[in-house]
Amino acid sequence: MKNRQIVLKSYPKGMPSEEDFDIQKTTVEDIPEDGVLIKTKFISIDPYMRGRMSELHQNNMTFKLDQPIEGGIVGEVVKSNTMMFRKGDIVAGFLPWKEYVVAYGWEVNKVQTRNYPSSYALSALGIAGLSAYFGITEIGKPKEGETLFVTSAAGGVGSMAGQIGKILGCHVVGVCGSDEKVRYVKEELGFDDAFNYKDVEDMEETVKKYCPEGIDVFFDNVGGPIEDAAMKHINKFARIIVCGQISHYNDEKRPQGPRVASQLISKSALMQGFMVRDYRKRFKEGVNQLVEWMAMGQIQYNENIINGFENCPKAFIGMLNGENIGKQVIKVF
Amino acid sequence: MKNRQIVLKSYPKGMPSEEDFDIQKTTVEDIPEDGVLIKTKFISIDPYMRGRMSELHQNNMTFKLDQPIEGGIVGEVVKSNTMMFRKGDIVAGFLPWKEYVVAYGWEVNKVQTRNYPSSYALSALGIAGLSAYFGITEIGKPKEGETLFVTSAAGGVGSMAGQIGKILGCHVVGVCGSDEKVRYVKEELGFDDAFNYKDVEDMEETVKKYCPEGIDVFFDNVGGPIEDAAMKHINKFARIIVCGQISHYNDEKRPQGPRVASQLISKSALMQGFMVRDYRKRFKEGVNQLVEWMAMGQIQYNENIINGFENCPKAFIGMLNGENIGKQVIKVF
Repeated sequence: MKNRQIVLKSYPKGMPSEEDFDIQKTTVEDIPEDGVLIKTKFISIDPYMRGRMSELHQNNMTFKLDQPIEGGIVGEVVKSNTMMFRKGDIVAGFLPWKEYVVAYGWEVNKVQTRNYPSSYALSALGIAGLSAYFGITEIGKPKEGETLFVTSAAGGVGSMAGQIGKILGCHVVGVCGSDEKVRYVKEELGFDDAFNYKDVEDMEETVKKYCPEGIDVFFDNVGGPIEDAAMKHINKFARIIVCGQISHYNDEKRPQGPRVASQLISKSALMQGFMVRDYRKRFKEGVNQLVEWMAMGQIQYNENIINGFENCPKAFIGMLNGENIGKQVIKVF
Repeated sequence: MKNRQIVLKSYPKGMPSEEDFDIQKTTVEDIPEDGVLIKTKFISIDPYMRGRMSELHQNNMTFKLDQPIEGGIVGEVVKSNTMMFRKGDIVAGFLPWKEYVVAYGWEVNKVQTRNYPSSYALSALGIAGLSAYFGITEIGKPKEGETLFVTSAAGGVGSMAGQIGKILGCHVVGVCGSDEKVRYVKEELGFDDAFNYKDVEDMEETVKKYCPEGIDVFFDNVGGPIEDAAMKHINKFARIIVCGQISHYNDEKRPQGPRVASQLISKSALMQGFMVRDYRKRFKEGVNQLVEWMAMGQIQYNENIINGFENCPKAFIGMLNGENIGKQVIKVF
């Protein structure tokens, strides 16, 4: 049976280009005992994947050259050799970028999006929403009335983080990369305030102006100069949730910047990184809470859906350039 | 009645010199209602005080010029206008560097060192010991068998942090600034291992060699290149206790270095600063635990006591140069 896959052809230097990827014709492997054949419906395009393409920071998560990219995928079971799933089940998992994927049953989960599109298992009710949920509730632990500052606020994670902050009673300020995104997070998502970092001359002054009472919880997807400015305005006992570093993913060298330790001491502040997988045993709890908030109309969500398996590389590069409003997803079948 | 005080004459540029301080003759103020007159017995000399002398990073804790330095002091009540204290009571508090200090009753606490010298209220059973205790137990939360890496390991705080780590079942590795200190922490304090950073050519390789299983808990008093090397070797879910930054206290500019955020993400690690005062409501609990461990012989402690009020500036500078083994204290009367 005919199949296609997308592999990493070369480790990108700086911003990836489409030449770093290759779309290859291939076939469908045999389905093992306990395995399923999945027809890919949606592919998740996420900033953190750039880190897995780094030649400089190789680790056991680094993508191998000439092997398929791997990421969040939602698909339909078309054949099952396991009792766990039946034909027609919609499942999600971390799987290779292929049109048809063979996986073991334990590699995927049944999608629990209920009344929502199944692509939500990759976005609002998947790793994006869960990153926001666990980051905010487990690390940020905001109290009513505190100021939450969110970078990449119109993105798949930031848009959820800010709305969860609103539900929990925070004053929420977002940073985005376009005026349209600023409008979106304020008018459609209900952020209290937001600004376009591309218009900013003095970042420290701007953060101060938008967060006049300082920052209690800082949900950071970006790093770099915005982080530096935000760190100068954190309050006593601030919590900094380090979710992403999109401003550094294309760096060729280990990035340098102002040291944070003295500021952490003087503010008795906490800075904590995480990966959403750390909370995998609690995903069901997270999804249930997010579904409840959505059902009550407290969370709006936007997906930026592009059609066509072959457009994954282009969409990935576009996302790193900030072209998407909301979560970037590819529709395959 | 004659008195002497030590004031900050100028904000030090880089390493402080004795010219930045002035020893002045003065008199004893009137004792207010609810006040006490205290004859200073011991003065605590601590690295963090350099931060309060910074012209660059002024805040509400910055010492004012021509005003007495303020820090941890133990003294004897020689006159009391409050029911809280009687003549002869030994008290401790954050007070000005004066031979005779007038304070309100609520500014000081009765010393609870029991069978130990009263100077311990500034050291093992004071802010040094309590910094180690709350840093390790509240932020580090070590599990048995984990590796604890401690900088400034022979100092007042580091020596306690490492020993508490041993009590809690850690493999403890210390960094010191002399071979004598290395011997001291290994042979007298029971650290599993230690090295002299001044002998190190490749810090990253050295940390790797001394912590072959990586670092789970990092108690940092220093910052700078040792922190950078340690950060490269943290394990998944590592906790970094940011207690001090002695390598940066003399910096004239905001120090730059490798950004930590990406490493915090990839290791799901936590980095938290604190001030011991954050835990002031629990000091009694901390002292009780430390006294218990001392009584059982599980904690050894060394004070480096220098005689003479006038030697405070010299001792402070010496401590910043790493001359002391154990906690630096001045004996006044």
